[in-house]
This record gives sequence, C-alpha cells and structure tokens, in this order.
Amino acid sequence: MKQVRALPFSVFAALLSAVVAATAQTPGWRPDFASAIIQKAMRENQAIKILERIVSVGPRLSGSPQAAAAVELTRQMMQDFGFEEVHLEPVQVPRWVRGPVEKALIVNSRTLGTVPLAITALGGSGATPAGGLTAEVVEVHSLADARELGSRLQGKIVFFNRPMDPTELETFRAYGGAVDQRVRGPAVAAQAGAVAALVRSVTTRHDNVPHTGVTIFRKGEHAIPAAAVSLQGADLLSRLLKEEGSVRLHLELACSTLPDAPSANVVGQITGRELPHEIVLLGAHLDSWDVGQGAHDDGAGCAHVIEALRLLKELGLRPKRTVRGVLFMNEENGSRGARAYPQAPQRQGEVHVAAIESDRGGFAPRGFTVSGDSTVLTALQRWAPFLAPLGADRFTPGGGGADISRLRRGGTLTIGLNVECARYFDVHHSANDVLSAVNERELEMGAAALAILAYLLAEEGAPEK
Amino acid sequence: MKQVRALPFSVFAALLSAVVAATAQTPGWRPDFASAIIQKAMRENQAIKILERIVSVGPRLSGSPQAAAAVELTRQMMQDFGFEEVHLEPVQVPRWVRGPVEKALIVNSRTLGTVPLAITALGGSGATPAGGLTAEVVEVHSLADARELGSRLQGKIVFFNRPMDPTELETFRAYGGAVDQRVRGPAVAAQAGAVAALVRSVTTRHDNVPHTGVTIFRKGEHAIPAAAVSLQGADLLSRLLKEEGSVRLHLELACSTLPDAPSANVVGQITGRELPHEIVLLGAHLDSWDVGQGAHDDGAGCAHVIEALRLLKELGLRPKRTVRGVLFMNEENGSRGARAYPQAPQRQGEVHVAAIESDRGGFAPRGFTVSGDSTVLTALQRWAPFLAPLGADRFTPGGGGADISRLRRGGTLTIGLNVECARYFDVHHSANDVLSAVNERELEMGAAALAILAYLLAEEGAPEK
Repeated sequence: MKQVRALPFSVFAALLSAVVAATAQTPGWRPDFASAIIQKAMRENQAIKILERIVSVGPRLSGSPQAAAAVELTRQMMQDFGFEEVHLEPVQVPRWVRGPVEKALIVNSRTLGTVPLAITALGGSGATPAGGLTAEVVEVHSLADARELGSRLQGKIVFFNRPMDPTELETFRAYGGAVDQRVRGPAVAAQAGAVAALVRSVTTRHDNVPHTGVTIFRKGEHAIPAAAVSLQGADLLSRLLKEEGSVRLHLELACSTLPDAPSANVVGQITGRELPHEIVLLGAHLDSWDVGQGAHDDGAGCAHVIEALRLLKELGLRPKRTVRGVLFMNEENGSRGARAYPQAPQRQGEVHVAAIESDRGGFAPRGFTVSGDSTVLTALQRWAPFLAPLGADRFTPGGGGADISRLRRGGTLTIGLNVECARYFDVHHSANDVLSAVNERELEMGAAALAILAYLLAEEGAPEK
Repeated sequence: MKQVRALPFSVFAALLSAVVAATAQTPGWRPDFASAIIQKAMRENQAIKILERIVSVGPRLSGSPQAAAAVELTRQMMQDFGFEEVHLEPVQVPRWVRGPVEKALIVNSRTLGTVPLAITALGGSGATPAGGLTAEVVEVHSLADARELGSRLQGKIVFFNRPMDPTELETFRAYGGAVDQRVRGPAVAAQAGAVAALVRSVTTRHDNVPHTGVTIFRKGEHAIPAAAVSLQGADLLSRLLKEEGSVRLHLELACSTLPDAPSANVVGQITGRELPHEIVLLGAHLDSWDVGQGAHDDGAGCAHVIEALRLLKELGLRPKRTVRGVLFMNEENGSRGARAYPQAPQRQGEVHVAAIESDRGGFAPRGFTVSGDSTVLTALQRWAPFLAPLGADRFTPGGGGADISRLRRGGTLTIGLNVECARYFDVHHSANDVLSAVNERELEMGAAALAILAYLLAEEGAPEK
C-alpha cells in the first residue's frame, strides 16, 4: 500500500489563475489552453504511436532507403493530421555505409588466446584492406597523449580509453568531456601514422554493446579504419595491455563512403492567425544512426514535434504567430539539413522569433535550456506555472542543439527541451536505442510541454533580450 | 553530435558557499560533505550491487523463506559495512500464500469461445473450491456501484473496472483514485453475496501483466476469492460484456492464509557523536509481493537506506545525532513492522527528530515531500543547493508513507524521498518489477540525496514547526 501525498491541485490552480489574469487581455487567448493540452495528450497518448510508425521503417542513416522512407512517412503523417504548408525542402546528404563485415580479435593473449571484442565502425570510418589488418595496440587517454606520442604510433592501432566522468550528473556535460576522442581521435591518430583507431564507447552503461557516432576526417586527412568498442571490451583490452604488455589486434571493417545522396527536411505548420511570417520553430532530426532504432535519438524528438502540432491543431489553438515543425535531415553526420534550412528560398520574408529543439530523448521533461540572458530567463520563468504539472517548469541557461544553432547565429531565441538525463547515454547511438526503452507517458509529457511553450511563444512573442 | 549546454558549476558553487558560510560555525561540520557524498556515490555505484544481492533471495512476501533470507542477508550486510548497533527487532507477520493454481477462463463467449485471462490473486484473497467456481460477471466502477446493486450481486463475480486517471500526472494520486477497488472492493462484493471479485490492475501500463496488492477483509467479513486482471484482460472482458451481454467466468485460486510467522525489522546506525539518543531515521520496507523481484518496491528503498549509511560511514561523516537505517517488515500486507518499531523496548529514552522514507522506487530523485507546515518547508528549502546537483532539491507538502506514519503521529517530522513517478506504476506489484527495470545511476542518485538530507538533519536538527 502507498499513502498518497502531494501538492493539492488547488495550489496550482491559484498560481494559474494569477498568470491567466495577467495575460487575459490578449486577443485569441484561451485561458485553459495548458490544461486542455495536457488532458488531451495524456488521454490519447499518440506520441508513442507516431514514434512506432517512425521506427518501423528501420534505422534512418542519412542517404539510406530507410531515411527516404521516413521522409515520405512523416510528410504523409503531417498531411493526414491536417498541418498546413506541408512540404519537403531538398538537401544533398553524405552517404556513409557500414558494410557487411565488422570484426575485432585480440590475437596474441598468453592467457586468453584469441578474444573477440564487441565493436562498431564509427560513421566516417575508412575500411581496412579486404581480409583485415593486424597491429599492436597503444592505449592513450586524450588527443594530447596521441599527439605527444607522434611517430611512435606509426603502424599501430591507437586505443582512446578515457571514460565519461561518472561523477558528472549532467550527463550531456560528461559526454562533452569524452566525445572529442571519438570525433577527432582517429584523425589525430592518422596524422601520426596509425593504421587504425579504436575508441571507448561514449556511454554510461557498462555492458558489452558498442556505441557508434560520427568521426571527422577533414579535407586532406586520411580516413583510417575507426571503431568504437564496448565498455566491457575496452576494460578487457586495457587490462591485457597492463598484464601482458603487448596486445595485437586483428581488425576488419568493410565500410565505405558513397557519393552524396538527395534527401530532405520535412516541414509542416499551423499558420499564425495575425503574423504568419513570424515563426516559432519546433525542431528535431529525422536521421539516426544505423544501429538500434534511433528511438530516443531522435525518433522521440520527431514524435514530440509532430504530436505537439497535432495537439494544437486538434484543439483549435491557432496562435498569433506560426508554429512550424521541422524534421531536419542529417544531424548525425553532417548537419546538412540544419545548414540548408536558413538558406532555402522559402525563408524570404520570414522572421524566426524562437526555435525549440528536442534532441535529448523521450524521457520525463524537466524544463528548457535557453540561449538568452537572465532577463529572458526571468521573462520565460513567468510561464512556469503552465508547465509545472508536467514537471517541465525550469528555465536554465543553455540553448538548443545542432539543428537550430544556425538560427541562433541569426538572432533567433533558441531553446532546448530538457529532460531527465540519467539514462540517455545508456542507449545513445547503440543497439540499446529501441522503442521498448521509451516510456509512452514520459514521451507524451514532453510533447505536451513543447506544445505549451510553443503556444505561449507564438501568442506572446519571444521576450526582449 | 550533441552540443553541451547547462548551468555552469560556478553558479552552483556560489550558492553552496553562501550556505556553507551560514552554517560553518557548527562543530564537526565538513563543508564539502555534499560533494564528497555525490563523488563517492557516483564513482562507486554500490546501490545497485546492494539491490542485486537483495533481489537474489527471491521475492520477499512476509513470512516466506525468502523474506527470512532477506532479513539475515541485510543484517549481515549492515554488519559488514561497519554500521553500529546492528540488530533485529522481532515481529509476528501474517502469512498469506498464493498456492499453485491461478486460472481464469471466460467460458461462454459466442464469438471467441473459451478465453483465458491473465490474473493474479490479491494478497488476502480466499481460495475457490477445489476445481474452481463458475459464475456470471457483473461490471461495476466503484464501491458505491457495488453497494447500490446489493443483492443483485448474489452468486456473481463482481468486476471492478475503474481505470487510473491517465490525465493525472502525479501517478501516486491517480493510484490513490483507483486503489480503493482493490483494497475494499472484494469485501464489499462479499457483503452483497458475490462469490468472487475481479479487479482491474491498478497500473499505468497497458499490457497483459496483472498487478497484485493487498485486499482487506475485516474481522467477520468473508474472504471470497479475489484477483487482479491485466489491463488487456479487463478491456476484453468489458467489451464482451457490452457486446454479448452475458459473460460467465471460471475462476480457480488455491491461495491460503497460514498462521502468523516470526520475522523482524532490520536495524543499524551511525551513532550520533553528541546526541546519540536523538534519531534521524531512514526507512524502507524489506518485504515485497511474491511476483517479480520487488526491485523498485521496495528493494530500491532498502538499497537507498543501506547505501546512504555506507556513504556516511566510509566518508567518516558522523553527525551530532544518530542516523539510523530501518528495514521494515510487512509493509505490503499488514504493516506489522511499522507498528512494532515505536513500541520496541529499545525505543526507551529515544527521540526521533525526523524520519525519511524511500518507497517510490529507484527512479531519478526530484526532492522530498514533507509533513511540516510552510515554516518547515521554507527552512528545509535553505538546504536545496546541496541537493540541486542531484535534481533532488524540491521540498513539497506531503510526508512519508506507511512505515513511518506512526512516528508522525508521535510528532516526528516525516519526509518521503520523491522521485520521477511516471514509470513506477508500470512495474508496481507485478512481474515487471525486476532488477533490469532499475537504472544504476538513478538509484545511486537517490541514495546520495538521502545521505545528504540525513546528514543535514542529524547535524542541524529538524526545523521547528
């Protein structure tokens, strides 16, 4: 048995009516919009259905047939829900393909003999020669380590093994503190003459599942084979290096980079009733990595965006300004969609007053990170009572992510949906990122939070900086 | 790729030092205690190991051999961690046994023929005759419905089918709004002459897993057979009643109630350095239902309590007052442990200044519910900066649950650890409540939050009401 104890609804209602009184003069204002959104959202629970349909096409790596299917599926969904001006905005995307072979074997352990390691090629990795390559492993803990070793890495496999900081509770910050090894480690290793690179998976889950992600070779840099290894694999490798001195690894990757392929951003909206050319953008990315289902990253964000618009649409909430959903293509390995959007011909005469991105997974919402200064934060915090029932009422400094960062440079207020972050990097970019890891109520709460903030921004405008 | 954006640590550090300055005069105060606790907790991640050991004995229904094993295991654990005054406080507990047979079949559907339903006997249920019973099903939506139908329920199986309110985001409140059907529905049905009762599982997850829990027959009331049915089963049953008019159900349950059995509360502490007889109690319940593993309910709470004490102990944090862990026996179906604790001979001369209970699962912590008035809440809110890194900094009205409610009546400040609540009733009292549903970092964060608040209360005392 449990005793039931919580803030009585009357306290919330009192707060709410104070805010409503302060804003009731706005024409078209519907004072119960927030509770109407929450009621409809939690009763109908459609975000999970939207997500089910998106992941049903398979993982959606840029340029893949699955990504193309997701573009058509979500365009059709937006149309079927009655969104307005539904269209595709074309963009050429990189086309990296994993290929059929991924193999890593420790071949010379005195104590264990031949040991397979669980690996996954990094997006952008080169291939090994057919039949693979075999070389000594050298463990390092930073790009600086690798640069210092320099030519001593000639002919070696460089193993970047610095973990995420487990004591950093803001897991996105812990990720930021380790991910440079994946993004630039292989290129730095290549510069020193290494034949391949192996990177400890950037994850919070200590299991045998490797986590992929982009690695970047700039123009003129040699794309050596590069893979992520599971945490259990990384720990084994590190232990054998300590105990046995020499570890030789056989690595085989058959990935390849094909010519750029045509794809698109998917756009649909509820056109503003008074200021249609002023836009509040809701963004997420439709592409994913090619392992797992991209359910949290960023199927959840796409479901948030579509469901938020559906809630507004079906409740007849048409605010003063336009609320536009954009499903960006190619966030994971190129950001081509993010770059194309501000330059598309349709942008002529449009002003983006605010952009909210959802790219932290479908976990319970906690609030929003905001690019503005303390004046803006204080102004937004006025709206907290509308978001409090969802637990999404904290506005903190920050901003949105990759897909809307170019709008930010153009002066748009950018905002990120912030969610409970303890589990995200357990699943991120891996076979663990599947539909069953998403809770339907938590996902729906995020969509409701997005709808409420979008409605407020589109009705009231962004606070002055 | 993700951009990293969050509150800079410097902001938190500034808040922290302000609080530290205000309390630095306290003798024995260790200004970095909170960050020391968090660092150690997240680095060592021992709560999940403690939980693994607890669930390894099997589900721990009061009076079962598994519950006895859990008592001995946790006593030994407390001793091994070096807690002080580790001992058992004996208590006699009810002993209800599920028995080998649980079966429910719709036997007369014109369209579907014979249809099995996924059910689980409620704790306290009577048995059917050997070979089962068969009767007409009558659907009701409240105890009042059942009372009104009165003698028309004679010889029937009463089916309580009111769902939890999906629009209630505080799931404990939604649970409170539906659980009366499970707790007292069968007794009310029995009074009207029903031969059995079936209750819609009190859960937020729409699957085919039934959720058990206690049903109460008071002295003189006839304990009819009573079971919970999965949500999918309940919906099917309801649909067939609408479409076909008559539904006959065959029900067979072999459960039984044996004589009360000996068991114990498990107690251990860090004795206060100045006021050893003033106690800050950390409580959870060691018993669980006999389905699943009781991992969230309340294995997680037990792991929180033991881990919080371990963190204080190993960091050498011995506050002015005693911090005591109590693992209560029999919360689920009798609260005998909760009743025995305040009356035990050891309580002579002791004053309980505060009691914190963890019985909402091992999800990410969000704060604490508190039995005091706004003065107490405001006083506790001073300590929020210590808890902010964990996201556990909200003090809201409420209080602890069943195990410490008797201390509350005695004037003790009672507090409940509040956690993210969207998923709890997905797993509660069911086969879904297993170790793999617990995230090790979220669990650990709860233990750290508990340790921090316990240390503050034991050092500073409870705020005056």
